[in-house]
Amino acid sequence: MSDDKPPIEFWFDFISPFGWFASLRIDDLAAKHGRTVEWRSMLLGVSVMKVMGLKPLLDTPMKGDYVRRDAARYARRHGLAFLGADAVPVLNPLAPARAFQWVKAHAPDVHKAFAASLYSAYWTEARDISRPEVIGEIGAGHGLDPAALAAAVEGEEARELLRAEVAAALEAGVFGSPFFRVDGEPFWAVEKMELLEEWLSTGGW
Amino acid sequence: MSDDKPPIEFWFDFISPFGWFASLRIDDLAAKHGRTVEWRSMLLGVSVMKVMGLKPLLDTPMKGDYVRRDAARYARRHGLAFLGADAVPVLNPLAPARAFQWVKAHAPDVHKAFAASLYSAYWTEARDISRPEVIGEIGAGHGLDPAALAAAVEGEEARELLRAEVAAALEAGVFGSPFFRVDGEPFWAVEKMELLEEWLSTGGW
Repeated sequence: MSDDKPPIEFWFDFISPFGWFASLRIDDLAAKHGRTVEWRSMLLGVSVMKVMGLKPLLDTPMKGDYVRRDAARYARRHGLAFLGADAVPVLNPLAPARAFQWVKAHAPDVHKAFAASLYSAYWTEARDISRPEVIGEIGAGHGLDPAALAAAVEGEEARELLRAEVAAALEAGVFGSPFFRVDGEPFWAVEKMELLEEWLSTGGW
Repeated sequence: MSDDKPPIEFWFDFISPFGWFASLRIDDLAAKHGRTVEWRSMLLGVSVMKVMGLKPLLDTPMKGDYVRRDAARYARRHGLAFLGADAVPVLNPLAPARAFQWVKAHAPDVHKAFAASLYSAYWTEARDISRPEVIGEIGAGHGLDPAALAAAVEGEEARELLRAEVAAALEAGVFGSPFFRVDGEPFWAVEKMELLEEWLSTGGW
């Protein structure tokens, strides 16, 4: 393992099942190549809808049906207890994203495990992870003070941390979830993880 | 090789570099699994712009830059003499698509080789493959009568053949290029060719 190489950036939105799928594999993949991973929040609602001017993926004719099928197929292939977009509550991802950024800043040792629990609560248990009390409860499972976390989600610091991260995503050309950057090289979508791994193995081309 | 299995459907638009990339590999991939491939024309201008209501990929903020980079990266990885979207003439893909459908109907033995020549004339030589005389000349390289082909491109039969194929694409949920269907199972994008191959190997999941 080399400590010299910068971490791989892994950008995700809690609203994105493919972001969840990628989150389950990226750290192991990186470790095989002596890399660490920095998990970073982005918001599809900002990049896709506001900046790119597109409609939400699942509401796009033809593509919405394909993506539902593709996500279910991925989950079967990887043995995941994935409920699917039509079986989970509609999610405003601001609160979990703010919570993630706040935990990353204040309890970095558990921030990935916390994100993993948020993701799995949503996609495998259909919990509404936009509710501060649900976020607090999930944080408690990682040794965080639930009341402090629930309050933080609605506070200015978490809001500002996420705002900065979303701005950084746009600046870096990050528009999707998952989105990876390896030494500045961008890889979009879970399908690109094999190519990303080849890039790590070979040093790129 | 089994003759019992239906062909894999390979849908493409001449305007799509990723369609070209896929065209170079799909028949070999299918043959390894005892399958043939039916090449079929679709039009991104109809599916993406008219039906899905999206803007052209290369004109989409952020995504356009990413896709340019991704296509160039793919070409380097596979050793292709790819000029890139900014170095080729703007293409109205109707004429080459009509020509392809007409050749497929009238000279099926050469229709794939003809499509391959159209694709490579455009993406590696920057030729304007929307011009009937260019199409005729490329057809001559495959033993086709150039004047007859150039005339056919502008005739009602080729127009009708393409119209029917594009309608079939929409009916089948085909919205991108490349797009594959294996026994009805859809796979969109060149990145999905490895998954498609796994599907063929395993029979699906």
